[in-house]
Amino acid sequence: MSEYSLFTSESVSEGHPDKIADQISDAILDAILAEDPRARVACETMVKTGVAIISGEISTTAWVDLESIVRSVINDIGYTSSEVGFDGATCSVINIIGKQSPEINQGVDRDTLENQGAGDQGLMFGYASDETDVLMPAPITYAHRLVERQSKVRRDGTLPWLRPDAKSQVTLRYGADGRPEGIDAVVLSTQHNPEIALKDLREAVIEEIIRPVLPAEWLSAGTKYFINPTGKFVIGGPVGDCGLTGRKIIVDSYGGMARHGGGAFSGKDPSKVDRSAAYAGRWVAKNIVAAGLASRCEIQVSYAIGEAQPTSISLNTFDTETVPHDRIVAAVREVFDLRPFAIIRDLDLLHPIYRPTASYGHFGREPYALANALAFSWEQANKAEALRAALT
Amino acid sequence: MSEYSLFTSESVSEGHPDKIADQISDAILDAILAEDPRARVACETMVKTGVAIISGEISTTAWVDLESIVRSVINDIGYTSSEVGFDGATCSVINIIGKQSPEINQGVDRDTLENQGAGDQGLMFGYASDETDVLMPAPITYAHRLVERQSKVRRDGTLPWLRPDAKSQVTLRYGADGRPEGIDAVVLSTQHNPEIALKDLREAVIEEIIRPVLPAEWLSAGTKYFINPTGKFVIGGPVGDCGLTGRKIIVDSYGGMARHGGGAFSGKDPSKVDRSAAYAGRWVAKNIVAAGLASRCEIQVSYAIGEAQPTSISLNTFDTETVPHDRIVAAVREVFDLRPFAIIRDLDLLHPIYRPTASYGHFGREPYALANALAFSWEQANKAEALRAALT
Ligand SMILES: C[S@@+](CC[C@H](N)C(=O)[O-])C[C@H]1O[C@@H](n2cnc3c(N)ncnc32)[C@H](O)[C@@H]1O
Ligand SMILES: C[S@@+](CC[C@H](N)C(=O)[O-])C[C@H]1O[C@@H](n2cnc3c(N)ncnc32)[C@H](O)[C@@H]1O
Repeated sequence: MSEYSLFTSESVSEGHPDKIADQISDAILDAILAEDPRARVACETMVKTGVAIISGEISTTAWVDLESIVRSVINDIGYTSSEVGFDGATCSVINIIGKQSPEINQGVDRDTLENQGAGDQGLMFGYASDETDVLMPAPITYAHRLVERQSKVRRDGTLPWLRPDAKSQVTLRYGADGRPEGIDAVVLSTQHNPEIALKDLREAVIEEIIRPVLPAEWLSAGTKYFINPTGKFVIGGPVGDCGLTGRKIIVDSYGGMARHGGGAFSGKDPSKVDRSAAYAGRWVAKNIVAAGLASRCEIQVSYAIGEAQPTSISLNTFDTETVPHDRIVAAVREVFDLRPFAIIRDLDLLHPIYRPTASYGHFGREPYALANALAFSWEQANKAEALRAALT
Repeated sequence: MSEYSLFTSESVSEGHPDKIADQISDAILDAILAEDPRARVACETMVKTGVAIISGEISTTAWVDLESIVRSVINDIGYTSSEVGFDGATCSVINIIGKQSPEINQGVDRDTLENQGAGDQGLMFGYASDETDVLMPAPITYAHRLVERQSKVRRDGTLPWLRPDAKSQVTLRYGADGRPEGIDAVVLSTQHNPEIALKDLREAVIEEIIRPVLPAEWLSAGTKYFINPTGKFVIGGPVGDCGLTGRKIIVDSYGGMARHGGGAFSGKDPSKVDRSAAYAGRWVAKNIVAAGLASRCEIQVSYAIGEAQPTSISLNTFDTETVPHDRIVAAVREVFDLRPFAIIRDLDLLHPIYRPTASYGHFGREPYALANALAFSWEQANKAEALRAALT
C-alpha cells in the first residue's frame, strides 16, 4: 500500500464481453502453440451482437480450425442461446487475420536464438507485496474471488438464475500502518434471468457470493453494498457491450495498485515482451518479496524493438527495503536474465498455457494448480534463495 | 518521481493503428455530440488491412454519415493510398453498432439531471507533478513531443519520405532529489518510404526530430539511440498491426508514471466515468499541485454503476504535501463536486471536443490552445485559489 487510506479495485467474470474476447484470443494462441511453438501470434478479437471477429497477425505452419475454437470458447463460457444474449453455435465468425510483417520478423529473429529481439518496444511493470498470502494487493484479490464465486454458483446450480456476465468492485480501507483494515464498499453487478426478483437476487448475492468470499472481520455496519444498482441486468454479454481483446489490462494485472506499461497480454505469443516481460516482472518482484528484501516491490523494464537486452531495468521498493536499493538492483541483474529468449526459456512459455490466464487475473494464481501443469510458472518463488545468496 | 532512478515512457503517432481506431471513435462521438448533446455513445473501432469496423453502443436522435467520417479520419492522418498501407477512399467500412442497453440507460438517467448515475462502475486516477511546466511527468511529455515532431516534419515536407506510423520511447534518469537529470535511451521507429537509406534515415531522425525536441543538457555521450532498430519499416498502419480503440491507455494518460484504472477514453461520451472522472481527476490533481499543496499528487476515485456519488475518493501525495493529508482531502471534497452531472457541467464536456484528445495525450495539453476553444478544460488551474481558501 501507499499513502492511500482507501483503495478500490475491480474485476469481471469470464462472461464479460472484453473477457470473451481475451479468452478467444488466448484459445487461438494455445491451439497454434500446441502445434507450432515457433509461431508468431498477435490475435485480436471483437465481439458484438451475434458476431465474433478475429483479427491480428499470425505466422505459423500449424493448421487449426479457428471457427471451431471461437465457437467452443463462447459455448464453454455459457453463451449457448440467444436468450442469454449470445450463442456460440449460431453466431457469425469473421476472420480477418493477416501475417506478421516480415519487417518486424527480421527484427525479432536475429542471428542466434539467444539474440532474439524484443517483438516490440514498450515498458512493463511487475509487482508484489506481502499484503496477502499470494503476495498480491488485497483489493484485486478479493475482487477476483467475488466473480470467481459468481461463476462457481452459476455453474454448480446453487443460483441457477445467474447468467455469465458479471462485474465486482471492492473498496478497502487501509490503516496508518498500510495494512488492510476493513471494506468500505462492495459493488457487484450480475446478469440474471428475467424470473428472479431484484430483492431475492440481492439477498442471494450477499449470502452465496459476498459472505463466503470476503473476510467477516472486514465487513461492518459501515460497509456499503451496491448489488445490481441499475435494477435490471438481463441483457448482457456482447449485446449490451462490445468486447475487445486487451481492454481489461488493470483487471488482468494488479487492480491499479501497481503501475502499468499499457501492453495487453491475451492473444500474444511470448516473443511479445508486453506479455513475457510483464510475467517476468511479476516473477522478479515476487521473489524479491519472498526473499524478504522488501515487503512491497515494483519493477519497471523497457525494451526497444529488435533488441535483446532491456533498455532499462529499475526498481521501486516504497521505502520497505531491508537491503540498500542498488544492491537489490544488482542482485536482480545477477539472478535474472531479462532477454526475451531467456525469459521464454526460464518460464517455459512456449506451451498452450494461456487460456486459463485470460480470466480472473494473470497474477497471484497458484502455479501448477490448474489442469495445465505448466501454467503460471511466473508465480514460483524459486529464485528467493539465489537472490539472498547474491546479496552475501 | 518515486524511488525509480530510471523511468521509461512511450508514445505513438497519430498514424499508429490503435490511434487510428481512437481517432475514428472520437470523430464519431464528436459528430453525434454536435447534433445531440444528450446522446449516449460508446464507439469501438477495429482497423486491419483494408477495413475499418465500427462497433459499440449508440443511442441518439442525430443523423450522421458514419462512413464519411471514418474515411475522412483515415485520409486526414495521411493514409491515402495502398502504397502507404491504407487508403481512406477505398477501404471497406463495416458498421455493427448497436443501441445502448435500456437496462443500463435506466441506471444512468435518474429522476433529476443532477442525480445522473455513473454510466459504469470503475476506478480512475488523476495525476500531476511539478516536474514540467505543464505539471506532467517528463518521460511521457518528451515521448509525445518526439512523435508530434515526426508528424510535423512529415506534413510540412521537411522529411518527405516519412509515413504516418511511428513510435517513440524515452528513458529518463532521475537524481536522488527526484529531479530529471538526463536521458539514458531514446527509441524512435518511424514508417518511411522505400527510397530512403537506413543510414540517411537515422541521421535525419536525429537532426530533425530528436535534437529539436529533447533538451540538449539531458543528452550526453552515454545516451543510447535506437532508431528504426528493425532496419526496415515500410509496411505500417493496419497492415502491420491490427488497431483497436482503447489500446493505448498509458500513452493517453501519464506514460506509466501514475496508476491507471483501466478504462479507455476514446469513443465514450462523458456519462461514462471512465472518461469524465479521469479528466476530473487530472483537474483536481493539477489544481492541488498548482496551489502548492503538494509537488506531486495522485487521486483515485471510484463509482458504482447508476450511482451519482463516488464510492471512494482517496489521495496520495508521495510525502510531498505542504499541508496535512486529510486536510487536502477535505478541501478537495469542498471545492470539487465529482458526481457525473457536476463534472460534465463544470468541465463543459458536452461539446465535440474529443477528436484532438485522441492523439498525443489527453493531459498536459494547453487548454483552449487548439482551434476548438472548449477543448482540454480539465487542464485549467482555475481552482487553486479556492483550494487554498478552503484550507484557511
Ligand atoms: C455498463 S456496460 C458499458 C457501457 C456500454 N458500452 C454503454 O453503452 O453504456 C459495461 C459492463 O457492465 C455490465 N452491464 C451490462 N448491462 C448492465 C446492467 N443492466 N446493469 C449493470 N451492469 C451491466 C456488463 O458487464 C458490461 O460489459
Ligand atoms: C511491432 S508492431 C506489433 C506486433 C505485431 N502485432 C506483430 O505481429 O508482431 C507494433 C507497432 O510497431 C510499429 N511497427 C510496425 N512495423 C514496424 C517495423 N518494421 N519496425 C519497427 N516498428 C514497427 C507500428 O507502430 C506498430 O503498430
